[in-house]
Formats: sequence, C-alpha cells, structure tokens
Amino acid sequence: MKTDIEIARGIELKKVIDIAKQIDIDEDHVHNYGKYMAKIPYSLINEQQISQSNLILVTAITPTKAGIGKTTVSIGLTLGLNKIGKKAVVALREPSLGPCFGMKGGAAGGGYAQVLPMEDINLHFTGDFHAITSAHNMISALLDNYLYQNRSTGKGLKEILWKRVLDINDRSLRYVVTGLRGSANGIPSESGFDITPASEIMAILCLSKDIEDLRRRIEKIILGYTYENEPFTVKDLGIAGSIVVLLKDAINPNLVQTTEHNPAIVHGGPFANIAHGCNSVIATKLALSHADYVVTEAGFGADLGAEKFFNIKCRKAGLTPKLTIIVASAQGLKMHGGVAQEDIKNENIEGLKNGLANLDKHISNMKSFGQTVIVAFNKYGTDTKAETDLVIEHCKSQGIAIAINKAYSDGGEGAVDLANLVVETIENNPSGELNFTYQDSDSIQTKVEKVAKQIYGASSIEYSTAARKILKLVQGTEIEHYPVCIAKTQYSFSDDPKAYGVAKDFGLTINDIVINNGAEFVVIVAGPIMRMPGLPKVPQANHIDLANGLIEGLS
Amino acid sequence: MKTDIEIARGIELKKVIDIAKQIDIDEDHVHNYGKYMAKIPYSLINEQQISQSNLILVTAITPTKAGIGKTTVSIGLTLGLNKIGKKAVVALREPSLGPCFGMKGGAAGGGYAQVLPMEDINLHFTGDFHAITSAHNMISALLDNYLYQNRSTGKGLKEILWKRVLDINDRSLRYVVTGLRGSANGIPSESGFDITPASEIMAILCLSKDIEDLRRRIEKIILGYTYENEPFTVKDLGIAGSIVVLLKDAINPNLVQTTEHNPAIVHGGPFANIAHGCNSVIATKLALSHADYVVTEAGFGADLGAEKFFNIKCRKAGLTPKLTIIVASAQGLKMHGGVAQEDIKNENIEGLKNGLANLDKHISNMKSFGQTVIVAFNKYGTDTKAETDLVIEHCKSQGIAIAINKAYSDGGEGAVDLANLVVETIENNPSGELNFTYQDSDSIQTKVEKVAKQIYGASSIEYSTAARKILKLVQGTEIEHYPVCIAKTQYSFSDDPKAYGVAKDFGLTINDIVINNGAEFVVIVAGPIMRMPGLPKVPQANHIDLANGLIEGLS
Repeated sequence: MKTDIEIARGIELKKVIDIAKQIDIDEDHVHNYGKYMAKIPYSLINEQQISQSNLILVTAITPTKAGIGKTTVSIGLTLGLNKIGKKAVVALREPSLGPCFGMKGGAAGGGYAQVLPMEDINLHFTGDFHAITSAHNMISALLDNYLYQNRSTGKGLKEILWKRVLDINDRSLRYVVTGLRGSANGIPSESGFDITPASEIMAILCLSKDIEDLRRRIEKIILGYTYENEPFTVKDLGIAGSIVVLLKDAINPNLVQTTEHNPAIVHGGPFANIAHGCNSVIATKLALSHADYVVTEAGFGADLGAEKFFNIKCRKAGLTPKLTIIVASAQGLKMHGGVAQEDIKNENIEGLKNGLANLDKHISNMKSFGQTVIVAFNKYGTDTKAETDLVIEHCKSQGIAIAINKAYSDGGEGAVDLANLVVETIENNPSGELNFTYQDSDSIQTKVEKVAKQIYGASSIEYSTAARKILKLVQGTEIEHYPVCIAKTQYSFSDDPKAYGVAKDFGLTINDIVINNGAEFVVIVAGPIMRMPGLPKVPQANHIDLANGLIEGLS
Repeated sequence: MKTDIEIARGIELKKVIDIAKQIDIDEDHVHNYGKYMAKIPYSLINEQQISQSNLILVTAITPTKAGIGKTTVSIGLTLGLNKIGKKAVVALREPSLGPCFGMKGGAAGGGYAQVLPMEDINLHFTGDFHAITSAHNMISALLDNYLYQNRSTGKGLKEILWKRVLDINDRSLRYVVTGLRGSANGIPSESGFDITPASEIMAILCLSKDIEDLRRRIEKIILGYTYENEPFTVKDLGIAGSIVVLLKDAINPNLVQTTEHNPAIVHGGPFANIAHGCNSVIATKLALSHADYVVTEAGFGADLGAEKFFNIKCRKAGLTPKLTIIVASAQGLKMHGGVAQEDIKNENIEGLKNGLANLDKHISNMKSFGQTVIVAFNKYGTDTKAETDLVIEHCKSQGIAIAINKAYSDGGEGAVDLANLVVETIENNPSGELNFTYQDSDSIQTKVEKVAKQIYGASSIEYSTAARKILKLVQGTEIEHYPVCIAKTQYSFSDDPKAYGVAKDFGLTINDIVINNGAEFVVIVAGPIMRMPGLPKVPQANHIDLANGLIEGLS
C-alpha cells in the first residue's frame, strides 16, 4: 500500500472556500492560508444549532506506541457518514512538531482517511502553536524583567511557577538555570521548558468561549507567589492585553478537508497524557453549529482523553455527546493480553482473548459517564478472520454493538457499516445526561480518588510532600472547585507504563500538583510523567526530506 | 496627528490579489494569508528583468534611540515614485516581536507612510520568524540528542557552538545551563539564546538564491568541533532535509501594500547591529523582476546596514544599486552635535551645525563604494525653517543633492520632490560599478581592519584571546574568503554607544568571532554588543491591548 504522504499527494484538493460552502459558510468569512487551509471566525458559532446536532466521541483502548488508529477512525467515520448522505464534520486537534520530528511522525490520520493538506497540517499549519509558544514565552520574559527591574525594591516573588515552552522534543531543556553571568544578564533562576501542548496557554485557548473569556483566563494565570504568600498573576504584571493580541488569530478554528473533501475542523492540541487532550471548545461548537453529526476525538486511551473530555471539556462547555465509540485493534488487544511487541502482528487467539479485559474496563468506564458505547474495530491487514470474529463475538456477548472500520484502506466506503451503526444507535439509543465522575464541590483529593479508583482501578493514592503542600495551599479557595487534569502515562491504567492489560491493586503516586488557574483546572502529576518529551536514537527528523519539491517522511 | 495605528485603521485595504496584479503577478501565484497578505513564489524572479530595473538603497546617519525614520522614508519614496507615475515597489525587512513588545514598538513605517496591515506585519505576519525559530531550535534539540545518544560511544564533540533562539527580548536567556537533574534529562551544558533575527538560519534564508542553495548552506552550518578538531555540521547530523522542510514556505517573499496601495515586499529580518541587516536577496530580486524602481533599506546607520548591504548582500547576490539615499533628521544631527536628549526637539543651530560631521562621514563612506549619494531630510513637526535651511545649504555646498521628505504627514504627496530628484539622479548620474571595501582574498584581519579604519574611522583594532583563537582556526581555510559581518553598537561609529558625532582615534575591540559557515560570513563581535536584547523598565507590552476588537499600542 502507498504511504500516507503518497496517498495525500494523489488527491486533488478542493479549494477551502468550496469546503466552507458545504457547511454554509460564506466566502467572506473564510480567512485563507493558501488555497486549502483557512481560519473561520468563532462568531459563526450558533448555540441554537448546536442543540440540534449530534456529537460523537471517539476514544480508544490503552494504546500501543504506534497508537490504535483513533484519528483514522474519526476521519473514516466522517467519510462514512458523508457517504450515506449525512452532513458530518470531524473536529480534531492540531499535531505538534515535537512528536512529528521525534518518534511518532505526523498526526493527521492515515491511509485513505486523512485530513489534508497533511504536509502543512503537520508542519506550521496556520501558526497556532507558534502563537501559543510566543505568548507563553513573552509572559516568561516579561515576568523575568519585572523581577529584574524590581530586584532591589522588595517587590519580588518568593516562588516562581511559570516556566517556558517550545514545540520541540528536547530533553535538555527540561531543567535549566537561566540568568547566568552577572547582573546585566538577569537573576540566576531555576527554570525549564515544557512542550507547547502542555502550556497553560494551550489549555486556556482550548477551553475559552470567546476572546473575552480568553482574556479573563489569561489574567488569572498564577505566575508565582509574593513574599506575603499572595498569588502573583498575569493581571498583576499588567500585560494580559498584549498576550491576547498575540492570540487574536489563534483563537479562531482552522478549516481543512478530508481525503474525500468533507469539511474538517482542526484546532488546538493539548496532549492527553500531560494536558486535557481535546481540540478547542470553540472548534467543537463551530462544527456543531454547521453540521448534523460532529465526530471528535480525545487523546490516547479512554482513561486519559475521554475522562478529561467529559469531566473537564463537556462539564465546562455544556456539551453532551450522543455516543461514545471505543476504538480497538487486534494488535493492541494482543499487547494487553501479554503478547510480546515483536509478535503482535502474528495471530494469537489466546493473547487476544486475554487482552479483551482492557477493552471491557474502558467500556465500563465510558458507561459510568452515562454514555451509550459502541466499539469500532480498526482492521489491519495482518488481522486474521479468527481474530476479528473473536472480538465481534465478545462485544456482542456483552451487549455492545460493534462495527469494523476499514477506512484506512478503503476510505469512506470502508466505514459505511460503522456510519450506519452510529446513525442507528443515535436514533434509537442515544446517551442521556452526562454523569460526571466527581462533583465541583468535591475536594481535590476526593476528585483524584474518584478518578483513580473508579476509572483507573487504583487501590490507594499517595502524595509527595510537594503535592501535599499545594493541596494545603488551595484548601478553601476557589481553586478547590476546579476539575482535576491528571497527567499520567498513556500506556497503562496505572502510573507504570509497563503494566499492560488491566492493572489492579496498584497505588497511584502523585508527584506534583500544578495549578492552572487560567485553564481553571488543577494538574495532578501521577508517576514519572514528562511534560517535555525526549527524542529517540534515530528521530523521525532523520527521515524527513524535500526531494524534487516533494516532502518525504512525514508519515 | 493621529497615531500610526489610527491612520492604518482609517485606510480601506485593497485585496492582495489586486496588489499583485499591479506588478503583473497572476492570482494563481498568490498564496493568501487572509485577504491582505500573501506569499509569492520566488520562481517568479526573472534575472533578465532585474538588469532593467533600478535599485535604490535607503540608509541613514547614526540613529537616535527612536530612529531616524529610514523605513518611513523608504515607504514614502515609494509612494512618491508611484505618484509621479513610476512603477515602484518597496522591499523591507520583517519586524521582530522582541523590539515590538520591548522598547521600540512596531517597525512598519509611520504616519501616512506605512506598510499594511501593520497589526499583522508587526505580530506573527506569515510565520517566517516562527519557522526560523523552529528550524534553529530543532537543530539544537537534534544536536543535543545526538550527543546524548552518543554519550558513551566517544563520538561526542569537544566544543559546541550552536545555541538556541527566541523572537523575544529576554536577558535571562542569554546565558543558561541546560541538561540538569540527572542523566535522563540530557548532558549538563552551557548554552544560551540569541534573538531570532541573529540566528544563522535567518542570515541563510536572507542570502539564499533558492531552495537548493538554502539546503547547501544549512548543511554547511558548523555546530561544533569533534575531538579530532574537525568541524561537525548539520550534514554530519543528517537532518538538513528536515530543516529545509521547516523553511519551505518561509523562503518565499511576502506581499503587502503601502498606505497608498502600492506593492510592498517584506521578507526576512536580520538586525543590522548583530547581523547583516537587509531583507532577503530573493525578495529584492523578486521586486526588481516586477518593478522599474525598487526602494530597499539597510538597518541602522550607514556604517552598519549599508556597509553590510554592499560588502555582503550585493557582493554575493550581484546587485548594483543605482543610488544611495542617506536619511538625516534635525533631531539626529543635533544629538550628534552634542545637544542633550531632552533638548533635541528645540531649535539649536549651533548644535545642528556641529552634528553635520556625522552626515558628512556617512556621505563619504557611501561614496567610497562608488555610489551616487543624495540626502533625504526627514522633516519633523518640531523642525524650524532655519534648521531645515541649514541642512539644505550644507548639502548643496558639498555638492550633494537633497530633498525634503514629508511623507510621514502628507503621504506620497510629501515625497514627490524626493521622487523627482531620485528619478532625475538615476537618469543623469547613476552609480557605477560597486567598489567593495575589501576583497574576498583579504584575510579576516585585513577585512576587519579595512572596515574599521575606512568606514568607522578606528585607529587600531584589538582582538580578545577567544577571537584570536578563531582567527587561527580559519587561517588557510575557505572561511577566510568569507565577508565579515561586524556586530557593533548602532549608536556610534565606534564600539562605545555614547560616542556620538564622529568618533575619532578610537581602538575597536573584537571580543569574539563566530563562524556562520552556512551564511558564508564571519561574525566579528565588536565591543559589548548583545545578541539577545533585554526589556526596559516599562516594556511596550504594557501598552499593547485589544479593546473593542481593535489593537492598541503597536506603534
């Protein structure tokens, strides 16, 4: 089969103004970035239309290193829905340059189920990540300058919490000391860089309702604490307006197209392991305002992305999905059934059977939110009939509907069954009201405990001294009413990336707690999770190239 | 008078596709970024047309902190030339976010002589600086990863020269230590950040002929030295292709419009004090391919920007300006005449007279390149008639033609005299062949000595031990044939920013030498010049805001 980029190249794109017309967006509202990408103003959100539309969440079993194909299924389902005559749009996150040049490669779907132009989406796209990086580091520079200019006035800070970000995998930047070589060059300080998808600005952009809400949240960001133990915010620094100016375009969603010329909205990109893992609220609402079916995705497995999608994004934005789809693959299930990485492409019925427990746990978790759940079996060329049949039989025996997705190899035609199942399920058996795992009024500890025990299956939770200090700090404040955003490995229900299947009777260790006062959630760092990834021995960058004007190695 | 941004807002922009049509660029070649900005492929350069066109360099006397108004004169002259029926395009550098949010504010002209949309040009524009920042830091991350992965193989480097960049004024990032907190987080190293306009990638982008030349130069970048004393390059790292991919759009020039809807090409942005200070070769050539007159600018005073424009850019790109215009202002001349900063707005004939020596030295320098020189007197509201007359008389007595520029307050109408003088001078007395200050075959020391003595007026040059080490290293290599790019304060002919007027009998101290092997020049760091600026007590960021959808404080 052709590579993703070869398939992408073979497709003649439609102009983005024509894509916009498909969802009744007039040319005047299309802010082009070249002929095939555009920003659409969020003012085209129509709350009344939203309530008429159907939101579908695509999530997955605990992923392998290569992923389960969630984005491919999300795009594939959208192709399938359009194929059967429905007006459907997919709403996705933007890829990050870090993984793209690191381990994972591009993140714009795969095979015949991609969003295009994949080369640009995977590179600088419309500059949103760069705007976020600029805004974040501009705050850092202005904060350091404030401390520098006030170094002898006593108006400094006791503790600085704000670091820096770059959209690159660079382990060397995790822990740095800045301001060295004498007083003309700043004040020596411990600092560090996270990857841009972990920036609080990214979370804020993805949770804001509009530019006023963006500003309100940016003003609230806590940069550190004064000697009087008061939070010192962006508002105190007096620069919120300039940061909003840097984000004035980034707040608007991006419109592109699928491999079959259906509209795709791609906007915002927090990771689901170290952040909240969903595309922007504005993008989802814009899509819902202009389509009857909106397919969206939450990052990594359902314990990470979907949990945060419900408990953070839906709670805050008032969204209620009609259906949750869990994507499973035979290879993923075999990995969870104890089959070694090098053998997961070979048939192994026993291993597959053992791995189904991982799927079952995710199904039961998604049901706990009050969701109607179906399974999309993402079929790979190496899967055998016996394997496929086993998964289908298993789901049916549990009363869970299942459809096979072959959009990777067959495009929309390969997702017609899935699309029909989705439409039928939403018509006959849509999800009811959302049932959150915890209440706003629960304490932070109770919230963590409920997610850890009910969703992850942990038996106990332990807090580091640093984490306990923050818990004490926020006690009785507004912050205690925020949702929790647990940063945890994507490879296991537990905080141990090697504990496949369904980890049981494990203790969850909370190493650190970070208050994202602007995002209005509290980041709970569980286990040794890095907010700045590293690069592998041979990074993808060594394969990316431009040959005869054509980009190679982006997939 | 209205502020720059108020004037900008009052102008109804034409669509960039219509601006392109004015210079015979078809809609199909216009890669829109919104309705008013576009990238134009460099394939529209036409070498034959270039030789038919007239290139005009705008430079200035030694500037004040607020500048002399060089960009305003460049744009104003373009307005004036169009006004008198000539097909003229202005080719400028892109502003940097650092100074824009720091001390200086926007850099897109002023008053009724601006390039528009100034808000976007001064912010993220078409993302070129972000692409350069990404490309630079991607190399840093990949280099650090190489060293990390090879930490026990003996294939490391003895010395690392490559640092990082951000397009922000942040003094705390000048000197940093990275890779702290144990072996999982990299190798502890001294590093630092320059501002993006000082990146070698910026210089390379601005000097490249095409994408193949870009690649050739990126491969040549020296990142450090091996234990065998061999240079270790981007080619050795095996990632040049991926860096070229990150720059595939940034290499194409940006088309915008002036306040009077004339085409303006704005592309690349190295500073002239710490880098070579001119817009890209590709942009200048594209402009020359599509207009009869191209007005371009070189940064800061003529000792910095113009010297590098001739000795680096023109030498390498084979460009020959027909005319050099030196911009002078009464305030600038008075400062050089010893008038205190707080008094330069008041009439002071004696001070002004004393300051003319600065202008004369720049005139004689520009003549040394074989250029026909005229003076543009940039008139401010506070200038008196006696002051203006004095400058006019002085120039005439020296045989130098002069015209008054009032484009700031009057737009193109205010630059008609200047435009007529320019056309007449080019017709009757164009510059001849370029006469470079030094030859390729001169040693680095000889090149520095010729510029320092002939252009700056230094009497002696002293090298630090570090600088001497590099001189020895490059002796007898290809590098010795590169031009020199002297990094020096913009506020004086000397390396002392407080030595106004015409500094005399001074020694120039070379603190450091940096080989930009990809840019194919050698950066000579003279005096205490910072490659990463700091922020002032009250940065411009404190004034920038978004109010009722309108940006404030960008000028």
